[in-house]
Amino acid sequence: MKSTSHSPILGVLGGGQLGRMLIQSAINYNQDIHILDPDPNAPCKDLCQEFTVGSLKDFDTVYAFGQNCDVLTVEIESVNAEALKKLELEGKKVYPQPDILKLIQDKREQKQFYKEQGIPTAEFILTENKEEVIHNKGFLPAVNKLGKEGYDGRGVQILKSEEDLENAFDAPGLLEKLIDFEKEIAVTVARNEAGDLTVYPAVECAFHPTANLVEFLFAPAEIASDVEEKAKEIAKDVILKLGMVGILAVEMFVTKEGEVLVNEIAPRPHNSGHHTIEANFTSQFEQHLRSVMNWPLGNPDLRCPAAMINLLGEEGFTGPAVVEGQEVAISEKGVYIHMYGKKLTKPFRKMGHVTVLDDDITKLKEKAMKVKGIIKIKSI
Amino acid sequence: MKSTSHSPILGVLGGGQLGRMLIQSAINYNQDIHILDPDPNAPCKDLCQEFTVGSLKDFDTVYAFGQNCDVLTVEIESVNAEALKKLELEGKKVYPQPDILKLIQDKREQKQFYKEQGIPTAEFILTENKEEVIHNKGFLPAVNKLGKEGYDGRGVQILKSEEDLENAFDAPGLLEKLIDFEKEIAVTVARNEAGDLTVYPAVECAFHPTANLVEFLFAPAEIASDVEEKAKEIAKDVILKLGMVGILAVEMFVTKEGEVLVNEIAPRPHNSGHHTIEANFTSQFEQHLRSVMNWPLGNPDLRCPAAMINLLGEEGFTGPAVVEGQEVAISEKGVYIHMYGKKLTKPFRKMGHVTVLDDDITKLKEKAMKVKGIIKIKSI
Repeated sequence: MKSTSHSPILGVLGGGQLGRMLIQSAINYNQDIHILDPDPNAPCKDLCQEFTVGSLKDFDTVYAFGQNCDVLTVEIESVNAEALKKLELEGKKVYPQPDILKLIQDKREQKQFYKEQGIPTAEFILTENKEEVIHNKGFLPAVNKLGKEGYDGRGVQILKSEEDLENAFDAPGLLEKLIDFEKEIAVTVARNEAGDLTVYPAVECAFHPTANLVEFLFAPAEIASDVEEKAKEIAKDVILKLGMVGILAVEMFVTKEGEVLVNEIAPRPHNSGHHTIEANFTSQFEQHLRSVMNWPLGNPDLRCPAAMINLLGEEGFTGPAVVEGQEVAISEKGVYIHMYGKKLTKPFRKMGHVTVLDDDITKLKEKAMKVKGIIKIKSI
Repeated sequence: MKSTSHSPILGVLGGGQLGRMLIQSAINYNQDIHILDPDPNAPCKDLCQEFTVGSLKDFDTVYAFGQNCDVLTVEIESVNAEALKKLELEGKKVYPQPDILKLIQDKREQKQFYKEQGIPTAEFILTENKEEVIHNKGFLPAVNKLGKEGYDGRGVQILKSEEDLENAFDAPGLLEKLIDFEKEIAVTVARNEAGDLTVYPAVECAFHPTANLVEFLFAPAEIASDVEEKAKEIAKDVILKLGMVGILAVEMFVTKEGEVLVNEIAPRPHNSGHHTIEANFTSQFEQHLRSVMNWPLGNPDLRCPAAMINLLGEEGFTGPAVVEGQEVAISEKGVYIHMYGKKLTKPFRKMGHVTVLDDDITKLKEKAMKVKGIIKIKSI
């Protein structure tokens, strides 16, 4: 962060929308960014100092990419952590740390970590295959998760009753007690190498009924202040117990009894923090940058109540994307569109998001519903 | 604004900081940007879909650049307006319109336009050379301006008394009565092809005593509401009388008698609107984009009082830039740094800016002074 000509290069594994919004923040700091992504048309392709097309999962590709960077980070968890580990051992700064990425890549290890560290989470059983899931039918209703490769709703399914057992994953995974939650919330925490730690206010998420993706997000979460405090303490506890540097989104359930249980964590900017670009003093993308570069962390306070709506590809449309209703939506005060530069749409693909601001919570929700109804991502 | 694959290309003449901040907004709309700039290391170089190195003043270069674009705009006035005129005649959208650029390129024509259109401005005399300035010494104290090529404080000087006459510009220019103003303010207006027009709240500028550059900016301006209304009406009047499409910054003097006089105008995002990125519902860069693309204009209201500090190259330092004090400054809540990606600094070069937010005006000013004292742009 000293001279423009000598500043360290930040390498990012993944060049999707999270990398794209990170770049929008990095521009403000003259922070040069190198991107690695398998897709030659990835959302970051025209917006960085170096764009390399290559696999995030291939050891040699990731290792070679890291050679030209000073600091490395990710915008997706499923990357070759071994290559990052080697780069770390050779003196590169890698945040989140490769060992934490490995832990998070496997939901089974993640759950065991919570258990060992006394972090509240839903009760679970590890299962090696479909047979073991069936054997544990007494544990239903439960969420059946694949240990690895789950992402954006894939690799997660609800098994309500014995009839659902035929769909059980036939691979190492887990069964998690289905929580009859009151709300789903998320708290973002960030920590830098110097040990500074900041905690964002809790947000409330409403998920799409079938796609298992965040459909709406509201900030602040409408929860009792003691529940919020508990959630913030848990999020802090998780990042500290991981010893992680970077930004971490902690998704949690609030049960009807006011209990707070960790659901999943993401060691990177996350869908539950997109509203922070306009709604908070420091956006999650800038905070991510500050934390991995070991700059002082920014203030996480909310400037204004906000809602966030994911713009998902409409069902029934696959092909070159067409955005409908954008002009009507942006005519409204406090409506911010963020398109992700993806040329092709398919059902439920994350094509963009919209943040809505309003000091009046009722109006905010009305505006969010309206925007949701207006903007549609279809194809030609 | 329909499909990602068929969206019109916006060509921008100039790839400096204004283009760079425009790109940060354009990313949100999947708006592809082509940039033309003579400097191969211009601030926009790694951040756009196409970057062409070439003169902005050469007819053939500008004309050829425009061929691949659907809409053309500028981030600097001194461009080849003839080439833009030809492109306009051939069906390209060019905003601001080439004829308006020509008018603004010549301060003499600009002043005559105000006079003819009944727009209040300081009294003036056109002068062809040094001799004519000397001949009009009775008009002193006055501001002596070159007709063409003045920019960022160059081509403008104050002639207080006869002793200063030896410095008078020996080229077509003008003498303008020195206004004993109370404040300098600016109002930004924007207008799209459909005729939508929005007016930003007035801001107050404090200029550097010798460099004739904005040093501090405060929003809102601390002026009486009737003065603000008058200023807004004048700014609207200017854009309407120009018939301009795009964004226009109108710099004005407020005299001790509460009179409002137009000083200069800029038909593009301007230094007096940088704070809008964080402080207003719609930033000037997004508004520029909306206006030239003929999208609905955004709400211009202030979300929070703000100050803006230009980060100018320190006197006595020329060479590769080093930023001092950045980390201390960004530790403060509501401090936003924007570096412009310029590798080399020189005295008074605009290297970046900082916006400061605070609901409390006294604290805001304190914070702005503090930031100003902390961040220094020096060289290795």
